[in-house]
Amino acid sequence: MKSIQRLFEVDPWKIKTKALDIENRRLQESLTSIGNGYMGMRGNFEEHYSGDHHLGTYLAGVWYPDKTRVGWWKNGYPEYFGKVINAVNFIAMDVFINDQPVDLAVLKPEDFYLELDMEKGLLTRQFTVTVAGATVAFRFERFLSIVKKELAMIQMNATVLAGEATIRVVSKLDNTIQNEDSNYDEMFWQARNQVATPEVSYVTAQTIPNPFEIEQFVVTTGMKHNLSASDTSHTPLTAEQTFDFHLTTNQKMSLEKQVIVLTSRDIPEAEQVATLNDLFATFGNDYQTLKAEHLLAWKKRWELADVLIEGDDAAQQGIRFNLFQLFATYYGEDERLNIGPKGFTGEKYGGATYWDTEAYAVPLYLALAEPNVTKNLLKYRHNQLPQAQHNAQQQGLKGALYPMVTFTGIECHNEWEITFEEIHRNGAIAYAIYNYTNYTGDETYLQKEGLEVLAEIARFWADRVHFSKRHQKYMLHGVTGPNEYENNVNNNWYTNTIAVWVLRYTLENYRKFKNEATIQISESEQAQWQAIIENMYFPVDQELGVFVQHDTFLDKELMPVSELDPIHLPINQNWSWDHILRSCFIKQADVLQGIYFFNEQFTLEEKRANFEFYEPMTVHESSLSPSVHAILAAELGMEDKALEMYERTARLDLDNYNNDTEDGLHITSMTGSWLAIVQGFAQMKTANQQLSFAPFLPKAWQTYAFHINYRGRLIFVKVDSEAVTFDLLKGAPLEMLVYQEHVTLTDQIRLPLR
Amino acid sequence: MKSIQRLFEVDPWKIKTKALDIENRRLQESLTSIGNGYMGMRGNFEEHYSGDHHLGTYLAGVWYPDKTRVGWWKNGYPEYFGKVINAVNFIAMDVFINDQPVDLAVLKPEDFYLELDMEKGLLTRQFTVTVAGATVAFRFERFLSIVKKELAMIQMNATVLAGEATIRVVSKLDNTIQNEDSNYDEMFWQARNQVATPEVSYVTAQTIPNPFEIEQFVVTTGMKHNLSASDTSHTPLTAEQTFDFHLTTNQKMSLEKQVIVLTSRDIPEAEQVATLNDLFATFGNDYQTLKAEHLLAWKKRWELADVLIEGDDAAQQGIRFNLFQLFATYYGEDERLNIGPKGFTGEKYGGATYWDTEAYAVPLYLALAEPNVTKNLLKYRHNQLPQAQHNAQQQGLKGALYPMVTFTGIECHNEWEITFEEIHRNGAIAYAIYNYTNYTGDETYLQKEGLEVLAEIARFWADRVHFSKRHQKYMLHGVTGPNEYENNVNNNWYTNTIAVWVLRYTLENYRKFKNEATIQISESEQAQWQAIIENMYFPVDQELGVFVQHDTFLDKELMPVSELDPIHLPINQNWSWDHILRSCFIKQADVLQGIYFFNEQFTLEEKRANFEFYEPMTVHESSLSPSVHAILAAELGMEDKALEMYERTARLDLDNYNNDTEDGLHITSMTGSWLAIVQGFAQMKTANQQLSFAPFLPKAWQTYAFHINYRGRLIFVKVDSEAVTFDLLKGAPLEMLVYQEHVTLTDQIRLPLR
Repeated sequence: MKSIQRLFEVDPWKIKTKALDIENRRLQESLTSIGNGYMGMRGNFEEHYSGDHHLGTYLAGVWYPDKTRVGWWKNGYPEYFGKVINAVNFIAMDVFINDQPVDLAVLKPEDFYLELDMEKGLLTRQFTVTVAGATVAFRFERFLSIVKKELAMIQMNATVLAGEATIRVVSKLDNTIQNEDSNYDEMFWQARNQVATPEVSYVTAQTIPNPFEIEQFVVTTGMKHNLSASDTSHTPLTAEQTFDFHLTTNQKMSLEKQVIVLTSRDIPEAEQVATLNDLFATFGNDYQTLKAEHLLAWKKRWELADVLIEGDDAAQQGIRFNLFQLFATYYGEDERLNIGPKGFTGEKYGGATYWDTEAYAVPLYLALAEPNVTKNLLKYRHNQLPQAQHNAQQQGLKGALYPMVTFTGIECHNEWEITFEEIHRNGAIAYAIYNYTNYTGDETYLQKEGLEVLAEIARFWADRVHFSKRHQKYMLHGVTGPNEYENNVNNNWYTNTIAVWVLRYTLENYRKFKNEATIQISESEQAQWQAIIENMYFPVDQELGVFVQHDTFLDKELMPVSELDPIHLPINQNWSWDHILRSCFIKQADVLQGIYFFNEQFTLEEKRANFEFYEPMTVHESSLSPSVHAILAAELGMEDKALEMYERTARLDLDNYNNDTEDGLHITSMTGSWLAIVQGFAQMKTANQQLSFAPFLPKAWQTYAFHINYRGRLIFVKVDSEAVTFDLLKGAPLEMLVYQEHVTLTDQIRLPLR
Repeated sequence: MKSIQRLFEVDPWKIKTKALDIENRRLQESLTSIGNGYMGMRGNFEEHYSGDHHLGTYLAGVWYPDKTRVGWWKNGYPEYFGKVINAVNFIAMDVFINDQPVDLAVLKPEDFYLELDMEKGLLTRQFTVTVAGATVAFRFERFLSIVKKELAMIQMNATVLAGEATIRVVSKLDNTIQNEDSNYDEMFWQARNQVATPEVSYVTAQTIPNPFEIEQFVVTTGMKHNLSASDTSHTPLTAEQTFDFHLTTNQKMSLEKQVIVLTSRDIPEAEQVATLNDLFATFGNDYQTLKAEHLLAWKKRWELADVLIEGDDAAQQGIRFNLFQLFATYYGEDERLNIGPKGFTGEKYGGATYWDTEAYAVPLYLALAEPNVTKNLLKYRHNQLPQAQHNAQQQGLKGALYPMVTFTGIECHNEWEITFEEIHRNGAIAYAIYNYTNYTGDETYLQKEGLEVLAEIARFWADRVHFSKRHQKYMLHGVTGPNEYENNVNNNWYTNTIAVWVLRYTLENYRKFKNEATIQISESEQAQWQAIIENMYFPVDQELGVFVQHDTFLDKELMPVSELDPIHLPINQNWSWDHILRSCFIKQADVLQGIYFFNEQFTLEEKRANFEFYEPMTVHESSLSPSVHAILAAELGMEDKALEMYERTARLDLDNYNNDTEDGLHITSMTGSWLAIVQGFAQMKTANQQLSFAPFLPKAWQTYAFHINYRGRLIFVKVDSEAVTFDLLKGAPLEMLVYQEHVTLTDQIRLPLR
């Protein structure tokens, strides 16, 4: 079984270490990533570092369509795979002491300290080195402003502790960056322009041409410096400025680098330099002022979103790390953006958008941010409806098929069993519309844009089913369910369930909002959908009392994971693919995903029977798996199982549980720990427009507490060993259910735990 | 639907044309390929040709392991894909007239004529060009000796028809050859040595290093020339010799280029030059002598193998072309070799060996060559048993899994649904042992090597099945049957059938030859196999009276191909992969493949019910499909269907039916036309060690006739409109069945057709 790898100390608010771990520098970099939704970067050092590491800076929505690479081409494969591309390294500040480079891969720094302050969104680093006769203490601090999205600030201080030192800083905007993930080892950037003035240096770069008619992005980056006395030696017309500071013992230097990044997504190339100058002027250059507003903005985010856990600092650190990195990736400001699997922390797996957003992120953003944040996630899909129609056409089908992976809405993925067959994703897109509407009570989106999306998804399902004459039922053959450890199965219960749900939900709401709707669904189409709804085939087993994962699942050799010798785990690293497919072992919730989504439709007995049947066969080898199981286990009173599942999700990256965090963080599964606490331990539900709770407290914990936004209210929920307390911090009184009993929250309610 | 593309004239023995088709030069090259089992080449021109074409020379067993390229890695994928590699271009003779290059892509030749004489194994070409004031008629002739495998001969003649000409010929051994098919655009060859003497020039080249511990092949090629008077200008130390011929009108020149190719498969590098000198001395340099023995050898092959068709020259040309190209690829001299999908005619698809050999080629070689030729194909698999065990281990399974595609026995293919799941191939390897033993009556191979192979294949099946508690039956989940238009299905009837057959055949013969056997099968293992044999699950449908292709096949939307709008055909070019998988349409014989293999186990009613159920849903989009259907249709008296199927297979390449012959010929499916005539129209069967026939004559034909080798006899079979005639040309009298009646063939039998 897996051992954990914990590089940073346990601390409620900080990711910190006194060790420079040269062997695991990539992992350190991933875990100290910062971002502001517009741009972000791995925890790279400012100065040149010659050891193994991964220099990575990423700009939201700036990507390259890399020509598809497969072993064997299948009809319908997309032409390109959209790649997150590594962009200008603007933090670069090479440092020399008396002409000797400061390179931490070579020097042995004393007093090394690295800290990501999650409360403040600040990354700091300190170390002391003795080089060429001088001992110098350095401190770096940086942040990406969440108030001024284009702004990055880096502050560097150095003090000579012994000897004399000329400290040279070569501050650069480095565009000669190559992706680690590229299909053909190409450089994705080409130079456009460089301008240097005594005040500001700019570089402009453009993504290389592509044959797929995808926009070539143009990015202009400018830098300015504030510094203590130095000999500055500009190198004209390059994006590089050199500063020499001559210091004797106890003298100090400081240098503040201010960077602004603009992209052609917002500003046309021709206006970028002028806009950049304007922004430098508007923003001002007072480091402390700019920092203060950034800290204040993070403070506000935390006031809304923080989850407090007392009694378990590791659990506390885990959930805060997840929330911090989620918000660093996406905070809903730009409806053209979505939540990529690695955020700004790496480039592996490519693509910007997965169904993870709708299935796992929407519930969190609904509760922790203003409704508009979630609405922007919905609009993102609405904007891409034509591309989703294109995807369906690629398969010869009507309606719209939302992609597995995408930047533009056009499918980028290229494994047939996923690309063409993991179509349940289309249901999750529809489900998010329900989720938003049900949670917020706001029906305006559903009535117009929502119905446009729903109708096209419904049309896809109606065309994708076939009628089996033998069974006199509609069926869905050749699908891959959420359990990707089975491919090309027939009548996956989850897929059939969500397909029928989409048809029903769409019909209901079309009938309800017919007059407002911007689309038409003909009578014959409605009749066809009704026929499918009434005659869909669902595999069930009466004897076992379970919904059957797919047609022939019960013919397998069924056994619990506990009977498997642990040397086989994780099976995805130890078994060949066919072995995994044939086995009964389940990667992530499949039938149980359906029970989670449509929870109120099932009896507790049905939930228990299915959970007890499927969970023991589940290996949870997807980062998305534990949260759903934690929630259902909590509902079924299986508190130990719920906590076990929480622990598997909360510190996934901090403890490098899957041994792949060096490639970047698992951003889209970071909602899992929040879902486990709020929908699991606290049993928050919102079905039928009714807020309800039924909390329990894990034995080892003293307290947990969180806020939620719900229909104009801000509610603080605290669970301790004796009671659950609800505080209405904002908004009108609310009727809600606690342990199935009606209560009205006006100010505070405190009820004993059951 | 497809239209045919016929570049060459219909002629019983020749592939000939008067047109130089610059637009379709690649297709012309494929169709004029020649080979001698040891080496071969596409119909390239000797002189430089600047138009679109594919220069390709291939040496049997000389290959390169190209690092696997996939979009998404799956556990168990092979590390490399073995590539057929393009080798030294030894026919190269650039030609200049008065310093102007002769390049047929630029010049417009008069009297162009290109001919492949299949009877003689000779490729000739003539043309006249007027260049730089001179009109010159050229003639080229070449062959690859089937008597002296290392020998290639090229003869060039030119006559000046008008004007004066200095004809310069630059004869080369060109090793700067790059594969069209390579994963990373690498050059697979590196230079080793070049030696030039006034007599002979040599080049030695080696395949580049690889990280997979695969041998680097070394190839030495030497050339010598015989020529009419010329000024020769050697270029020392290069493998290039220049000859200038000064001719006036009506004067002629001639140049004979003699090439010998040696590889490190036979001769270590250190000995190659010396061996080459020896061979040049031994072979002599008399072109006519060397040609005469080559022609004689082809004459003997044809005496044994020719199929005569009167009344349909296109059909006649088709079957001879297939036989010629098959024999040019493989004639059984080297047990280390097998029959690659493109032979020496192209490099696409890579790999040297497919299950096609056992399923489709073995029956032909059994009948048309000495038993030793087939035995060498069996030994090839026996030699690769350790590698087949490795393949099974890669999947975590016991026993041996023969590969889908290979050079060494190690699997090279990398689509999970094929590599890991199209395991029925393992059954075909076993079936070939039965086929050889049953056809020849020679049990010596079966007793020792055969049982070693069979036992390991049986062990694979015994480990690959699982026991379904619900059904109390053994099952095979997650397979791909011969119909590759369905993937990852459960209980493919064909696979289950051949798996059980292997277990039974192995047990029977182990019990029979226990004392001679070199292996042991324990009692408990025998008992386990017996249990599987007795309790295997076979999907059948009593109502329809058919064996069901796999578990859920009948749940599909079933319809005949005839109901499909032809604009959808071929579906593999018009439908996305998931659509193909979901549909009922069948690529090639699947259930019917089993009925073909185990024909005698089924009643005529069973055969008819299954043929009538499956054939109408079959799109025959594999080149291997029509032959099996032709054979079964003939047995069922469906003569029109049988002839339709024959026509689909016989001229597949000559008429470029699949629109891909420019990449090379479909070598492994070339047995199909022979099978269709002999096992189909003539209904030759050999089950239970009993030779039988039941011929019919297609309406449009006057006669067809062929020879077969059977247990020391050579029998000539002729079918005309009235009767079938059997002539025993060699060997002892034979009892056989004709139209189910016992007859004894001593000299000649003539029986009326029924």
